[in-house]
Amino acid sequence: MDKPFLANLRKIDPYVPGEQPQSADFIKLNANENPYPPAPGVRQVLRTFDTDSLALYPDSTGRRLQNALAERFGIKPTQVFLGNGSDDVLALSFQSFFCSDKPILYPDITYSFYPVWCELFRIPHEAVPLDEDFCVNIRGYDRPNGGVVLPNPNAPTGRGVSIDVLEDLLQHNADCVVIIDEAYVDFGAQSALPLLDQYENLLIVQTMSKSRSLAGLRIGYALGSETLINTLEAVKNAYNSYTLDTLAIAVGEAAVRDEAYFRETCRRIVATRERTADALRELGFVVHPSLTNFLFVMHTKKDASVIFDFLRQKNIYIRYFKLPRIDNYLRVTIGTDEQMDRMIAVLKEFL
Amino acid sequence: MDKPFLANLRKIDPYVPGEQPQSADFIKLNANENPYPPAPGVRQVLRTFDTDSLALYPDSTGRRLQNALAERFGIKPTQVFLGNGSDDVLALSFQSFFCSDKPILYPDITYSFYPVWCELFRIPHEAVPLDEDFCVNIRGYDRPNGGVVLPNPNAPTGRGVSIDVLEDLLQHNADCVVIIDEAYVDFGAQSALPLLDQYENLLIVQTMSKSRSLAGLRIGYALGSETLINTLEAVKNAYNSYTLDTLAIAVGEAAVRDEAYFRETCRRIVATRERTADALRELGFVVHPSLTNFLFVMHTKKDASVIFDFLRQKNIYIRYFKLPRIDNYLRVTIGTDEQMDRMIAVLKEFL
Repeated sequence: MDKPFLANLRKIDPYVPGEQPQSADFIKLNANENPYPPAPGVRQVLRTFDTDSLALYPDSTGRRLQNALAERFGIKPTQVFLGNGSDDVLALSFQSFFCSDKPILYPDITYSFYPVWCELFRIPHEAVPLDEDFCVNIRGYDRPNGGVVLPNPNAPTGRGVSIDVLEDLLQHNADCVVIIDEAYVDFGAQSALPLLDQYENLLIVQTMSKSRSLAGLRIGYALGSETLINTLEAVKNAYNSYTLDTLAIAVGEAAVRDEAYFRETCRRIVATRERTADALRELGFVVHPSLTNFLFVMHTKKDASVIFDFLRQKNIYIRYFKLPRIDNYLRVTIGTDEQMDRMIAVLKEFL
Repeated sequence: MDKPFLANLRKIDPYVPGEQPQSADFIKLNANENPYPPAPGVRQVLRTFDTDSLALYPDSTGRRLQNALAERFGIKPTQVFLGNGSDDVLALSFQSFFCSDKPILYPDITYSFYPVWCELFRIPHEAVPLDEDFCVNIRGYDRPNGGVVLPNPNAPTGRGVSIDVLEDLLQHNADCVVIIDEAYVDFGAQSALPLLDQYENLLIVQTMSKSRSLAGLRIGYALGSETLINTLEAVKNAYNSYTLDTLAIAVGEAAVRDEAYFRETCRRIVATRERTADALRELGFVVHPSLTNFLFVMHTKKDASVIFDFLRQKNIYIRYFKLPRIDNYLRVTIGTDEQMDRMIAVLKEFL
């Protein structure tokens, strides 16, 4: 049968979803999820929530969550933009700020969505190689461009740069918007937050999916000058005015308001990460210094794919990227101490 | 100060948000929200929800809700696509299916987001005039085009077309994707659902914001051939793989599973609509026949803007569009009988 309507359909490579373990007894260390539950206030929000209010549209600016974040970061509510996960915030930012004919720049080893959004929105783009040790070479960004996206710390390498390096980047890129993707910043890296006052072209993007244990709720946000935030709001409102739902706004607020719980869970993950890094080094792994809730590792004698398959057989799921430069590396999310001890024990047995 | 980065920002007209009444005692009939609460099962979902599970990413396909919708509509789960409100589903559909150089077609009086998405995604577009009575002239769509979007029933007119007219439209538009936007279909119009089997280029978009009383949760969906749904999934996954959050999936399922509650609340709104239409006609209003949860009305002697302002003073909020052809019309959402009686009493006093 002839199907002429097919000619007008968007051609796009189908996405291969991450593995969802089917077994009941498995350890999931493949999506950088937090092993600890969300702040106790989250349960309270759901237990007492006025369900009748769900018949009404959400507050489209999410004012309560916006205020809570503004207070926490010491900025104005008008400097906070909310979205349906940081993927949504980043995708809208690409559409909002990268309207130049010059290519945008980002590291060659980084979050896999950046080039996908560039293709989707027809944004010219170029990858700047990380150095041998997977460190960011900041001088690679000293050239004409239509924008810069730098995750700090970077994923999946786990390495971060200091705030001095970020300021250097901003000083050399005043003519474009510079996005610092801080998805993992709460596990030990330096935020670009103190630079917000001076750099009107700086956008910081964070998420509640990692350090706030709320991956299931899809809450991301951007912090920036009113100029950038107003543009994001305008583009969002042209796309879908009510992005963040009423429950997400209420739950997000409860999570942000519990600073003590947040600090304690982050501290625990950092402690577990360092213990795990030491144990892996003892087993012959090269472990890159990580400022995130995962480790990026390579074994000196065994292939990454072999280790990955072995762990999977044992119901331990980690991440293996079959990509140039990192095809012998594995990314291991930091779980609880118990989960990591189990993984180390299984690896010991194997190696 | 010179700010060269401003040149790369997306230029877009700022959106003017709808009025949010500040008074405590008001009647809100301006956003087509449902006056009844969501199905009782929704409360149960929130009260018993496993909050710890929010630390994990959602099921990206929302399988449980997909299955519930597939069962209700008697189609395959692979024919159901879920999004963050029908605005999200429609915006993704525009990006996915309208990649032609020819203009897409939609009515001249219709949902205001259609032209906005066309501008945002650079899709050529043309409006096809409704006739004098605001009825769809289906012959206006018999010409080369890059796609068709027809809301049935239409908004803000409230008028619907029969399934025979929809089949006529599909027979004359086999070369493009035809989107039937059924946001309001549950209040008395005929769904295009029986045509899905025969027309692979038909996409039906519905929402849980109106007839399911869940505007606050942002749940929309598309029903279509696997060809269209697969394309939507691919584009969605390139944009934001985890669109619908875990709570929305669970709550949406509870709402869809309660068919009896759904039918009863829709029946009540239809009964209130007809009572209100009669009462308004008695007061000298021209009331278009409506198959939705709102009425589109014009008074024979008083200006729409004057009536709108008077009601607002009395804390009754309705919608006034200052747009060509309809600048003397008002859109009134159907609330409870009590709310409508109050509005009628206030109008009687005024007229």
